[in-house]
This record gives sequence, C-alpha cells and structure tokens, in this order.
Amino acid sequence: MKRAVVLLSGGLDSVTALAMAKQQGFECYTLSFDYGQRHEAELTAAKALSQQQGAIEHKVINIDLRSIGGSALTDDIDVPEQIAEGIPVTYVPARNTVFLSIALGWAEVLNAEAIFVGVNAVDYSGYPDCRPAFIDAFEMLANLATKAGVEGQRLSVQAPLIDMTKADIIKVGTKLGIDYSQTISCYQANEQGQACGRCDSCRFRQQGFEQAGLPDPTRYQ
Amino acid sequence: MKRAVVLLSGGLDSVTALAMAKQQGFECYTLSFDYGQRHEAELTAAKALSQQQGAIEHKVINIDLRSIGGSALTDDIDVPEQIAEGIPVTYVPARNTVFLSIALGWAEVLNAEAIFVGVNAVDYSGYPDCRPAFIDAFEMLANLATKAGVEGQRLSVQAPLIDMTKADIIKVGTKLGIDYSQTISCYQANEQGQACGRCDSCRFRQQGFEQAGLPDPTRYQ
Repeated sequence: MKRAVVLLSGGLDSVTALAMAKQQGFECYTLSFDYGQRHEAELTAAKALSQQQGAIEHKVINIDLRSIGGSALTDDIDVPEQIAEGIPVTYVPARNTVFLSIALGWAEVLNAEAIFVGVNAVDYSGYPDCRPAFIDAFEMLANLATKAGVEGQRLSVQAPLIDMTKADIIKVGTKLGIDYSQTISCYQANEQGQACGRCDSCRFRQQGFEQAGLPDPTRYQ
Repeated sequence: MKRAVVLLSGGLDSVTALAMAKQQGFECYTLSFDYGQRHEAELTAAKALSQQQGAIEHKVINIDLRSIGGSALTDDIDVPEQIAEGIPVTYVPARNTVFLSIALGWAEVLNAEAIFVGVNAVDYSGYPDCRPAFIDAFEMLANLATKAGVEGQRLSVQAPLIDMTKADIIKVGTKLGIDYSQTISCYQANEQGQACGRCDSCRFRQQGFEQAGLPDPTRYQ
C-alpha cells in the first residue's frame, strides 16, 4: 500500500489534507511539531485527529524555533486582532521549510511516495511559504536531496488545498466526515483549546463556515 | 556589515567554510545541531572553533532526528570501516535539508545575506544532499520561502568547498590559520574527541593531509 507523511498542526486545514490523503488510498503517517508555539492544545488535537482519521502512526518532533525568534507565535509579541496588509508578525521564519524537511527525512525512512501539507494560498495570512511556487520548489529539492531521488524514485509534495477557498475546504472535509469542533485554528487558543474569535486565523475560519453555509462548531472562549 | 549564518559541525570542512566566510568580510553566526549524533565531542569542538574564528554568536539547536531513524550515525547500526559503493549507511535522511532550513530561519531573523555550508562533492561519502544541484535547488527555495525573498532581497547559499579536493581544503584552511587538531571528522570519535582512524570520514581526512603534504594533526584513539 502506498504511504504518505502528512503534516498535521491540529488545525482545520491540515486535518482536511489528511482526510484527502486517506481518500486517495494512502496509508497516512502524521507529523506534528512542538516548536515553542504558545499553546499545546493543538498537539493534543493533532493526536486525537490522527486517531480519528486512522493514521498508522503520529509522531511529534521537538524543535525549538523560539531560540531563533522573529515571530509573534513563538516570541513574546502580541498577536494582532485585525487582518493587516503584507506579511504579518505571526509569520514564523522558514517554518514550513523546516517542517517539510523533517517530513522528507521521515518519508525517506518510510519509503513513502508523498508528503501532504495543508497550505492554502487563498484565504490565508500572506505567509511566503504558503505559495504554490514554494511547494513546487520544495518538491524539486526533495527529489535531489534524497537517496530515493538519486535512485530514480519520485516523491510528490501535495498541497491539495492550495487553490481552495476556506469555504470549499470546510465543505470537502465535512463530506469526508471530519468533526471540525476538534480542530484548533486560533493563534491564541487557551489551554482547553478554545478559540479567541478575534485573530486572523479565527476570522478566516468564521468566514469559511459562513460562506460554506454550515454551522461553526468552533469552541470559543 | 554583511552577515552570514555558517553551519558548523565541528569537522574539518565546516570550519574551513567559516574561515572563508570570514575572509570574505562576513560577520559570522555559527549554527550547530544536537540531533542525536553518537558523540557530543563535535559540539564542544564547534563551540571552541566558533570562538577561535571570531564568530559573533554560536547557537546549538536541539532536534531529535533519532526518532526518524534510518542512519548509522543516529541509530544502533555499526559504522562501516571500508569505503563502500553507493550511498552509505551513515547517511542521515534529509539532514542537510533540515539543517539548511533552520539556518534559513535564523538568516531571516538576522537579516543575513548568505548561508555558508561546508559540503563537498569531491572527496565525500556519496550523500545526495552534498551535490551542487541540491545546493542550487535549496537557494532557489530559500528565496521563495522567506519574507526577505518576497520583498526582493536575495539570500545566497554558498558552498565554497563543493568542488575542492580534501587536500585543497586543508591547504586553504591552513593558510587561513585553522588549527585542524581541534576539528573532529570521525563518525565514531570517543568522548575526548579522538578519531578511530578507520571510518570513511577518517580515511578521506588522512588522504587529504597526505596529498596536501602536511602533517596530520588529528588526535587518534
């Protein structure tokens, strides 16, 4: 059976990518990171969602991106509560590059054919490492970086949500049976995993449920 | 003054890359990893070499690549003592991709212009992520992945040793004043940092000093 490594943050997007990988017939190995983010509720969510979606294994890798700094998500900077122009302070330098690199290492060990990542270039926060050109460049790199690549085996880097609106993501995931009340998108969720309802990420999510015409099951503070 | 992040393993190659970056007028920020490698002597060496070479800051990032597995350098697999054909068991899946990604994050925070990496495609062990095409692909990715890249600032990924023989590296480094007795190349050095003299990495190093016509200052067991 073909295998995929799926990056899973515990948020709405990544669990939808997981359900889509599963639907495509992949055995899924989910990967989350403890990188000094402000709350651990999302790791708890990622674990529960992995089990619900029948992942073969869920791995959490510790990596202290706080020591590099430069983001409101890992540093002691306030998360803004308005959608701003440009690249926001919640951007974590090179985060997706680091996460995909580690996924690549695990994919190589598992002899996996694909890496799935739930990045999205439509209703997103303007992070440079969520753009289609970035994903394509990473796929190219991946096939040069690995033993499997040298031996002629292709690894695909799939970002199935990249061109979808948040509403479409929610519709697809709902059809695939995802219980979105278990997911955490908020940049400043509390320890119980309840959302603030005011940050960028909460706003995109609220709009998504609204536009999808579905009730918002998010647990708010 | 222009800044560079330099990946520093504590080995012969990376400290030479550091000295070359310094000679090119960069303020150097050195980056090492505690990734579950078998001995910590190389981190001690990296710290001492950073100071000797006048690096502004030396950072050690913890990342447990052991939990991914797949290498004799992190798993409980014997390191071979003969140079073998193909990609050796000492290859750590995606190691350089992961290390460069984290360097990229730090480079972004520091507003650095370059990342230096001491990979070498001549007298090396056949790792896929030491090839020139890999370095070029990573540079391309780096400029798509970051805020600086989006804003039009170029980051260069420099691998100044890539086409040099081990003997040439040693000659250049010796001219730049490097004390190679402080460096550790061995895959199975002991806690005092003394080399085995028998693994791939030791053999390439021995041949290098021989071909350079310089005494081998390596501390052997």
